[in-house]
Amino acid sequence: MDKEKALAIVKPFLTDARYEHTKRVVDTAVELAAFYEEDTAKAETAAIFHDYAKYRDLMEMEALIKNEQSLPSELLVHHSELWHAPVGALLVEREVGIGDPEILSAIRWHTTGKADMSRLDKIIFLADYIEPGRDFPGIEKVRPQAKVNLDLACFLSSKNTINFLLSKNQPIYPDTIFAYNDLFLKVKENLHGGKDLNG
Amino acid sequence: MDKEKALAIVKPFLTDARYEHTKRVVDTAVELAAFYEEDTAKAETAAIFHDYAKYRDLMEMEALIKNEQSLPSELLVHHSELWHAPVGALLVEREVGIGDPEILSAIRWHTTGKADMSRLDKIIFLADYIEPGRDFPGIEKVRPQAKVNLDLACFLSSKNTINFLLSKNQPIYPDTIFAYNDLFLKVKENLHGGKDLNG
Repeated sequence: MDKEKALAIVKPFLTDARYEHTKRVVDTAVELAAFYEEDTAKAETAAIFHDYAKYRDLMEMEALIKNEQSLPSELLVHHSELWHAPVGALLVEREVGIGDPEILSAIRWHTTGKADMSRLDKIIFLADYIEPGRDFPGIEKVRPQAKVNLDLACFLSSKNTINFLLSKNQPIYPDTIFAYNDLFLKVKENLHGGKDLNG
Repeated sequence: MDKEKALAIVKPFLTDARYEHTKRVVDTAVELAAFYEEDTAKAETAAIFHDYAKYRDLMEMEALIKNEQSLPSELLVHHSELWHAPVGALLVEREVGIGDPEILSAIRWHTTGKADMSRLDKIIFLADYIEPGRDFPGIEKVRPQAKVNLDLACFLSSKNTINFLLSKNQPIYPDTIFAYNDLFLKVKENLHGGKDLNG
């Protein structure tokens, strides 16, 4: 989809700050896609629409989660912050007419991650985490890995997310752990040699 | 089972230090069981045998995990430190002849925890974590809760365990997260009012 047209579709659904975040995710995702020889057009579209459902009415999202087979009802016992990614994938398909399963997957899993993410899934997951406007604790250890080892960067960001949730006494969505454990297996050779990654 | 007889069965399978740990877990578990009006005889037996398989040969445990339907093969991709609890439950039944499913469950889940633990499961899980010889980071926040709120004490110990695993870049067994999330739902009213629990 044409970039300007896609941005014009998403803009009314976002706050100004969230729209600026979205544009930074687009730039970061396209840069990572080019670096890792992934499809930059798909990365661009997934990034533009990744927060499409961010400000949907909670009651509307709750009803969709209850009624749509593709959305696990387990989401309802977790924080509503987790709803917009899977609901967004559904609505982007239904309302915007994007049918590419790789793009929809990247939107769906951009917040929690999951085991066996595709390269595009990882790029959107990571771009959302490290875009230049982000300032999470521990992000300074993630950014330098983004163009060195995609799996390691995603591992460190999922680890930071779990640490953050624990520090807030919040539940942890199982797919976040499945992502962390899966990425652990992919990066374990890199981890325990590298002292600086141990934080 | 008679306490002295049970201790005599388990002693040859443990190092001296682990045998002393076992006796402290027994004292702690019996004390908690009495406090929470749980069956103290079952707590005693479960505590005595909780580490029965701690020093079994890794190849023997691996073969059991591969061949026994009651043991999930997923254990094999996790640290062998997690094997002795489920393998122990199997061997205590097979070799010692303990058939009580509540005792076997408490042995099986004493390391990882799981969702929907029974009260006896929680008592053994917690007693193993807080017996007076233990000195984990954060344990000082768990001990005072042991006789105040059993769920909260178990929540805090599972949280500490996850924090520890993250700090070591280690994978996290899914049942540990399922325990944490399940306990979160049971204690959330207690958590976010209590500043001191936020560590």
